[in-house]
Amino acid sequence: MAYNIVPLNELINQFEKLPGIGRKTAQRLAFYMLSQPAERSKAFADALVGAKEKIHFCSVCQSLTDRPICSICSDSTRDKSTICVVEEPRDVMAFERTREYKGLYHVLHGALSPLDGIGPEQLKIRELMARLSDPAVKEIILATNLTVEGEATASHISRLVKPLGIRTTRLAYGIPVGGDLEYADEKTLLCALEGRNEI
Amino acid sequence: MAYNIVPLNELINQFEKLPGIGRKTAQRLAFYMLSQPAERSKAFADALVGAKEKIHFCSVCQSLTDRPICSICSDSTRDKSTICVVEEPRDVMAFERTREYKGLYHVLHGALSPLDGIGPEQLKIRELMARLSDPAVKEIILATNLTVEGEATASHISRLVKPLGIRTTRLAYGIPVGGDLEYADEKTLLCALEGRNEI
Repeated sequence: MAYNIVPLNELINQFEKLPGIGRKTAQRLAFYMLSQPAERSKAFADALVGAKEKIHFCSVCQSLTDRPICSICSDSTRDKSTICVVEEPRDVMAFERTREYKGLYHVLHGALSPLDGIGPEQLKIRELMARLSDPAVKEIILATNLTVEGEATASHISRLVKPLGIRTTRLAYGIPVGGDLEYADEKTLLCALEGRNEI
Repeated sequence: MAYNIVPLNELINQFEKLPGIGRKTAQRLAFYMLSQPAERSKAFADALVGAKEKIHFCSVCQSLTDRPICSICSDSTRDKSTICVVEEPRDVMAFERTREYKGLYHVLHGALSPLDGIGPEQLKIRELMARLSDPAVKEIILATNLTVEGEATASHISRLVKPLGIRTTRLAYGIPVGGDLEYADEKTLLCALEGRNEI
């Protein structure tokens, strides 16, 4: 086609590579960025490169941080007896939003999925086991997702941790707060039934 | 909140400023970019800055280009007797996708909207009038959107152009190809009725 603006196409292609962004949305976003002042593009570009350059895994919990050890692991007020094991760094953020959990975290960076070639050595399980040599650790909360992969990961870690005499727990699964029984799927309803409590 | 990674928040904020991207999607996109190799972030950043630096308005048609005069205006095979007037550069791309229109374009960069402070002097109307001094121009196709603003813009330009003895036309509005009568809104149906043709 005659009307081919290379730098524009390059920008559209970059937007299109993002998950959940199709061609039309990518075009809309590219035209939007062109309509903005140059400082906006510069700030966005700096944020992209800066985030990638400055953020790395915390050497203790493997979550994301821009310091050698993340702000949670280096916070002396946190409860060092409990480690909440999650799949992804964003799960840490979800827990932190509750403002209630005061223990530590460990990010696995995925879940066991043999079909995708993800075995125990692809996850940060060795790093977790190394942390358990600290006698302060009394409980491991397995907060992986309630998927086949998440469940498999939880039971794998549970088998490794139990012989050490450390308590392992799993999150409660059930009807979400504000949820409607009518719209709950069978698996969730079954979990809610199995995990029922005396009132 | 204790868990505050400044470079990550900066990236999330940049994504969130894009139109149609909410906080959750911005977080998802930021985490996605962090999970990608550094070259991806670098390429995206370069595309953002490069597009803004290299792309400017064509000095003739005011569309976007990375050359002094865009590839359409400088193409000697295009029909110089017809100028299609559109609101935005993306409208040029839409016409070019038809691969049928062989005339030239003129991009207004908006439509008349007195409430938003957009009058004739905020649009590229002066640049359009300057092009009409070329005796080769025989027809102006007013392809602004069928909105109050688009219609007002079309009739304003039509009033300016008609005294010059140049033909002014408006796009046909009606049922889109493949469209269902049942789902057509009243305005579209009315346009289709008024613009009916002998068969």
